[in-house]
Amino acid sequence: MTGTDWFSAHRDRLDGALAAIRSRGYYSAFPESPSPRVYGETAAADGKAAFEAHLGTTYPVETPGSDGTVSTEQSPYGLPLQVQYPRTTEAGLDELLAAARKGMIDWRKGGIETRVGVTCEILDRLHKRVFELANAVQFTSGQAFVMAFQAGGAHALDRALEAIAYAYEEMNRYPAEAVWEKPAKGDPIRMQKNFTVVGRGVALVIGCNTFPTWNSWPGLFASLVTGNAVVVKPHPLAVLPLAITVDVCREVLTEAGFDPNLVTLAAEQPGDGLAKPLAQRPEVKLIDFTGGSEFGQWLEQNATQAEVFTEKAGVNAVIIDSTDSFKALCNNLAFTLALYSGQMCTTTQNLFVPAGGIQTDEGPKSFDEVGAGIANSIGKLLADDARAVELLGGIVNPAVISRLEKAPEYGDVVLESRAITHPAFPAAVVRTPLLVAIDAKAEEVYGRECFGPVSFVVRTGGTDESIELFRQTVTAGGAMTAGIYSTSEDVLDTAREAALEVGVALSENLTGQVFVNQSAAFSDFHGTGANPAANATYTDGAYVASRFRVIQSRRHV
Amino acid sequence: MTGTDWFSAHRDRLDGALAAIRSRGYYSAFPESPSPRVYGETAAADGKAAFEAHLGTTYPVETPGSDGTVSTEQSPYGLPLQVQYPRTTEAGLDELLAAARKGMIDWRKGGIETRVGVTCEILDRLHKRVFELANAVQFTSGQAFVMAFQAGGAHALDRALEAIAYAYEEMNRYPAEAVWEKPAKGDPIRMQKNFTVVGRGVALVIGCNTFPTWNSWPGLFASLVTGNAVVVKPHPLAVLPLAITVDVCREVLTEAGFDPNLVTLAAEQPGDGLAKPLAQRPEVKLIDFTGGSEFGQWLEQNATQAEVFTEKAGVNAVIIDSTDSFKALCNNLAFTLALYSGQMCTTTQNLFVPAGGIQTDEGPKSFDEVGAGIANSIGKLLADDARAVELLGGIVNPAVISRLEKAPEYGDVVLESRAITHPAFPAAVVRTPLLVAIDAKAEEVYGRECFGPVSFVVRTGGTDESIELFRQTVTAGGAMTAGIYSTSEDVLDTAREAALEVGVALSENLTGQVFVNQSAAFSDFHGTGANPAANATYTDGAYVASRFRVIQSRRHV
Repeated sequence: MTGTDWFSAHRDRLDGALAAIRSRGYYSAFPESPSPRVYGETAAADGKAAFEAHLGTTYPVETPGSDGTVSTEQSPYGLPLQVQYPRTTEAGLDELLAAARKGMIDWRKGGIETRVGVTCEILDRLHKRVFELANAVQFTSGQAFVMAFQAGGAHALDRALEAIAYAYEEMNRYPAEAVWEKPAKGDPIRMQKNFTVVGRGVALVIGCNTFPTWNSWPGLFASLVTGNAVVVKPHPLAVLPLAITVDVCREVLTEAGFDPNLVTLAAEQPGDGLAKPLAQRPEVKLIDFTGGSEFGQWLEQNATQAEVFTEKAGVNAVIIDSTDSFKALCNNLAFTLALYSGQMCTTTQNLFVPAGGIQTDEGPKSFDEVGAGIANSIGKLLADDARAVELLGGIVNPAVISRLEKAPEYGDVVLESRAITHPAFPAAVVRTPLLVAIDAKAEEVYGRECFGPVSFVVRTGGTDESIELFRQTVTAGGAMTAGIYSTSEDVLDTAREAALEVGVALSENLTGQVFVNQSAAFSDFHGTGANPAANATYTDGAYVASRFRVIQSRRHV
Repeated sequence: MTGTDWFSAHRDRLDGALAAIRSRGYYSAFPESPSPRVYGETAAADGKAAFEAHLGTTYPVETPGSDGTVSTEQSPYGLPLQVQYPRTTEAGLDELLAAARKGMIDWRKGGIETRVGVTCEILDRLHKRVFELANAVQFTSGQAFVMAFQAGGAHALDRALEAIAYAYEEMNRYPAEAVWEKPAKGDPIRMQKNFTVVGRGVALVIGCNTFPTWNSWPGLFASLVTGNAVVVKPHPLAVLPLAITVDVCREVLTEAGFDPNLVTLAAEQPGDGLAKPLAQRPEVKLIDFTGGSEFGQWLEQNATQAEVFTEKAGVNAVIIDSTDSFKALCNNLAFTLALYSGQMCTTTQNLFVPAGGIQTDEGPKSFDEVGAGIANSIGKLLADDARAVELLGGIVNPAVISRLEKAPEYGDVVLESRAITHPAFPAAVVRTPLLVAIDAKAEEVYGRECFGPVSFVVRTGGTDESIELFRQTVTAGGAMTAGIYSTSEDVLDTAREAALEVGVALSENLTGQVFVNQSAAFSDFHGTGANPAANATYTDGAYVASRFRVIQSRRHV
């Protein structure tokens, strides 16, 4: 098969994506249910076996310039992974980057449709391994299985396809050739012009621990499809999902006749600090980063030879003003706070509630009753340990536990965090969310990100102050998500205007099966690029447009 | 009139531009001929009178936070200008930037069509003052009148319209609202979503001396139409064209009911160094710069809170391998080297010619004969002083003269530069191009930009070496333009490939009325963003996409 064959084979899927990014209606190319009715009776077991076959082995992926191997993963589930990967060090970067660049000319010459065909085929192959990937995501990130399958598999594939669709549309804004004919005295002046899409150079993708695929794939595929080579530097604690990804990329590139080193894995020993020297190499022209604000800002300020796309941290907020569905409000927020133990970059941290309470369909609720209502919903949702662990997953690293243990000091505990023993993985570290009531004046506490299962119920003077604190905290600390509950159109209007001004997406009165911490590919933007939490979004034109340049030639005809 | 009225009024012009940026065929919305048959019998005289009315006066434009006035222009024609402008200093930036931001919310609320209508109306009003602008450009930049009318007026308007068209298309990639309907057990999940285009903040436009309008307008209008406020910091030697621009922007904004401080003029005293503190202000989110490489790089590396679009300097090259029209080759290059005394960022600096000479329609020509042919064409083109000055214009500043006077030392003079006394402006400094033959090994000379009427005929071992030197010099020093003359398809292919790899647009065998230093709006990209001479291009998707963000809200329906 060639890239253009694959382009034809995946044309319908691409067309669906292209239509969806224009309408921003519902679209999904990869079924999100891991049910055997969708994926077949043996898919789950086969995927699990494929995952388990990696354990204790050396992953068969070659990295130019690598030196020995590393084995750095420590599963939040306590499962010994012990997979070895080629180790990249600063000393190997010359060789790695030279190898990465080598295939770029042929990759450019392949043309737009070939590159889109190859990348769509990669997604298709990744989809065939989605259960294996789900296991890899689960046991590195600590996500529960269904979430790992969805966020780490099906939804990540949708996000990757979305990035490819945007890039395809962007590259096609320019004709491959044009005739320019200028009226002139006598004959018109005629010129033939050619326009070629050319990648920028080497793209670096820096993965994170919590969402190794979902957060890495949009940048990886946006860069690859636009003609760049991609070096993937995974988080040392979540290598396997990206090793599989790189493996599949290299397999498909090779089949299509391209240099497999167009996509490489650069695994490191923790403490090697490989990202900094890699990010500042002159060959590196694009960087996609997901992780902490400090290093994200360092990249933005220091890797100035590259276009830098960052998703960092924020202080996500929900303003609670009033509701006509108090129970549904509590249940909806409970799910958000419980999912993956609040370890999503989109989990709500701050719940702004008036000290005087709110109006609801159940009558007035005091400040304490609002907190108690949410706490009660969390309690019910997580009452059964065996079911709770399938929502909570495991705590990704010990720093989360440290923050969680310190957080009760900040105010009055509304709901204590509870340790749960995982029925299947007794070594897993599982915790339920902690809710702490805190005064509005303690902005030095809730104005900073407290990553993990910690949320603050912030006691404000009223909704006006809630909105003002929302503005202040998001302006200073950024936010990936925001929500409002209100029955008043005036309040909703004010909150919408505030959200526009501080640059964060707003979810209004979520009381059903949509949650403030979730974004749907093709329809919801993830992040905005308009506040300090992220300088880019999945996916818009700006996310793809600067990943390539158009080089023209012209001549008389 | 409102913005939407103007949107309707200028719809045809916009539609023409939108079609052209997709086809990249010929389009122009603003006639380039200053002929009275096009613009009317009195237009030229009226425009000159309007320009002259400014001389010795205080320009009636208000700048918040300004303190006193400055008068900094020194015409290359020796004409005393003595126009006073409000002086902006670092102490006034708080007030200036607060005032700039004040109108942004209303400007965003106006919506896409209103902003496009307002900016198109600004172009229309600038077009009505095109002769006044042409005079202002002529007497500040030193361009001759016809060039100032075209490059500084009609073509600049086309480039501005092109930027508006790209921005309009980009903003319209996202629907204003959408209904998202996800299939689910029982009823589908339905959500209403709204998407709002929001500007990034304050945009800073840093103008240059040589093309105050052509190089400033694309960024100015791209930023304004996408919802940003714009602070225009002109070059101290070329303020008037941008003062008129800002004046017209403020006039139209006011008529449409918007805050005129959405566009402000920040004129400075030379030596104030206003650009640095301004560029690093947190309110500034977009910067467009045209000028020297050193400051451009400083901006790229230090104004990391902003998206920075730079056009800097390069070493533009033409490779001469062979030709079937030697006279036309010489005449075409002669025009390029003579126009505006080579003071264009697109003027060819390096002519790579094999030491063994080339094949032509007139038989073999030795290295010296190629140089002599071009020199002879320049001599003829500029033989008549009165006609010569209408091509050459004036030398923009004394630094150009210093470089010109030093350049003969670098090699063997093929054509001496000649001083011409301008018949109408005896104080004008006018010089013809200098041609210096130089050896290929002197890359430390021709590998750097020597801005002004200095070009090098570089003696190479053959076309292979010419192409290799072209690669090396453009990779290291960048280029805005490149050309090749060859009758061999193989050589043309090799040159095209080299141009793609080093990231510069290639003009092939130009022998007629198209010149390597000229780019046509809507069809030719100006700069590529793919080599060190510029990190952006006029205009592509990447030039507009990051000037705004899309902020969404969502709710169940």
